[in-house]
Amino acid sequence: MKFASLKEGGRDGRLVLVSRDLTRAVDASDIAPTLLAAVEAWEEVEAELEQRYQALNRGELDSAFAFAPERTLAPLPRTWQWLDGSLFLSHGERMQKAFNLDPIDGADRIPLAYQGAGDDFIGPRDPVALPSEADGIDFEGEFAVIVDEVPLGCTAAAALAHVRLIVQLNDVSLRALAPREMVTGFGFVQAKPSSAFAPVAVTPDELGDAWRDGRVQLPLQVEWNGERFGNPFAGEMHFGFHQLIEHCARTRRLSAGSLLGSGTVSNANPDVGAACISERRAVEMIEFGEPRTSYMRFGDRVRMEVLGPDGGSIFGAIDQQIVQAGGTS
Amino acid sequence: MKFASLKEGGRDGRLVLVSRDLTRAVDASDIAPTLLAAVEAWEEVEAELEQRYQALNRGELDSAFAFAPERTLAPLPRTWQWLDGSLFLSHGERMQKAFNLDPIDGADRIPLAYQGAGDDFIGPRDPVALPSEADGIDFEGEFAVIVDEVPLGCTAAAALAHVRLIVQLNDVSLRALAPREMVTGFGFVQAKPSSAFAPVAVTPDELGDAWRDGRVQLPLQVEWNGERFGNPFAGEMHFGFHQLIEHCARTRRLSAGSLLGSGTVSNANPDVGAACISERRAVEMIEFGEPRTSYMRFGDRVRMEVLGPDGGSIFGAIDQQIVQAGGTS
Repeated sequence: MKFASLKEGGRDGRLVLVSRDLTRAVDASDIAPTLLAAVEAWEEVEAELEQRYQALNRGELDSAFAFAPERTLAPLPRTWQWLDGSLFLSHGERMQKAFNLDPIDGADRIPLAYQGAGDDFIGPRDPVALPSEADGIDFEGEFAVIVDEVPLGCTAAAALAHVRLIVQLNDVSLRALAPREMVTGFGFVQAKPSSAFAPVAVTPDELGDAWRDGRVQLPLQVEWNGERFGNPFAGEMHFGFHQLIEHCARTRRLSAGSLLGSGTVSNANPDVGAACISERRAVEMIEFGEPRTSYMRFGDRVRMEVLGPDGGSIFGAIDQQIVQAGGTS
Repeated sequence: MKFASLKEGGRDGRLVLVSRDLTRAVDASDIAPTLLAAVEAWEEVEAELEQRYQALNRGELDSAFAFAPERTLAPLPRTWQWLDGSLFLSHGERMQKAFNLDPIDGADRIPLAYQGAGDDFIGPRDPVALPSEADGIDFEGEFAVIVDEVPLGCTAAAALAHVRLIVQLNDVSLRALAPREMVTGFGFVQAKPSSAFAPVAVTPDELGDAWRDGRVQLPLQVEWNGERFGNPFAGEMHFGFHQLIEHCARTRRLSAGSLLGSGTVSNANPDVGAACISERRAVEMIEFGEPRTSYMRFGDRVRMEVLGPDGGSIFGAIDQQIVQAGGTS
């Protein structure tokens, strides 16, 4: 199934089902008013949602309407918890090499994750409003899973059964603010403002064979101001999402609707490009002794999309502009 | 006003008003079903809630019933965002001195804060279930404020007007897991499981003169297994809550219902005791060259309470046991 949250439903959106090819949608708010409500009552609502989704795909629903991504909020506009990993080791290793950072002991055995702001996500076509270009505005293309309630002590072996939905996001990052926050040991607050999400959340079966080993086995296409920036393969993720879930549930249960992220997609092969500017800058640092690419300016655009084996868009595209908060772009 | 959330209302509780002396309660769920809903619609519901609260205190409501803290969830059982500061500098300084940690540059000018888990708070009399004593189980007595929506870029001068409620909490901490998480720079995930809260949330006016300069100007009484552990004065907080709000809203807005915490209450004078075991251990380290107090064992209890100038309990007491998750205490 594919889900979106229409803006007319208020802060949490109005739940709709979206056809597999992303052309049509149908209201689902009579089954569950919001996507969060659907995840919280998944066992009770799944069958009815699935039935309507199949009818939508067969073109049988007179109530269906054209799907317009610009009318959507993030599929999950806000949620109880956002835990973002850094599961692609080549990203961290490149950063360490470029900027002479100490390697993190056990980084290949213990998933790295921080708790982020889940209270106010941004829609796929909406502007990202930020206070200052001097903060080092960057995008991060990544994936995340939405789980139902995960008990304390859930093992990796049991974790994938809790994955109800997969989403694709732009984890907006402010690079000038990150180093000090990391030195404190307390993690990111100012350096990680609200994230933006691709139009639809999908159930794992929508990925077919491309959902395997707790990983999205597809490339993520990233463009910056209309030019290709990278298309790294997400299957290269060192840890599977099941391992991240086990890590985060080690000392507490995770409420239904919790969102767990992969961190920026990154490959060992630099020829595929990157899913964030800071990684390109690290490659430049290693190659030229200096970073040559500047961070984003107000007015810049970023676009992200994932195509399936048949060439169709899976999550729809993020396509958004960076603007000055309280001002004009 | 004083609010609690009764357990019979499901995961988010059923909103009740509680009398100033904490003896009586009356349903308020017809005005706002939950405390989160009340905070999200504060301007619309405040007058009606206030009217009923005054009638409750005058003993005029036939529908009032005896207030029982063991029937309550945390006043805000879960919320969109939990940002916990470390606003008492004597705590960090003592830790640094005892364990030879590097001081954090600018710690007296920039509030320290991490993003915590806000998805699953624990009630005031409910057990805290954790997987292992070897994790170094500790309590942290602290305060937090609940805000309405705070715009991006909110200044400290404008921030206190967004404080709708004040709460008192036990920020459960797992000390053996914290050092590695701090070294990664990503902050706490496993080391900060779910926190527990005193029975009622109060509006700032309930504190009278004891709410001043964005600080709770009262001591916090902490007992461990029935013995006094400390009663540090919370007015010694180096930063006010308004400064923490400004810090956290620097690059993003904070949704209504966001919770911002003080960190463990701590005083420069060690004679007042501490609000967490790790601080007592630091004092012992400085005095004896070794920590002599062990962390909590399953079956241990912790109690926290704040008395007003008239000797009455302001938030009600946290009084809870640590138990083994999935097992018996």
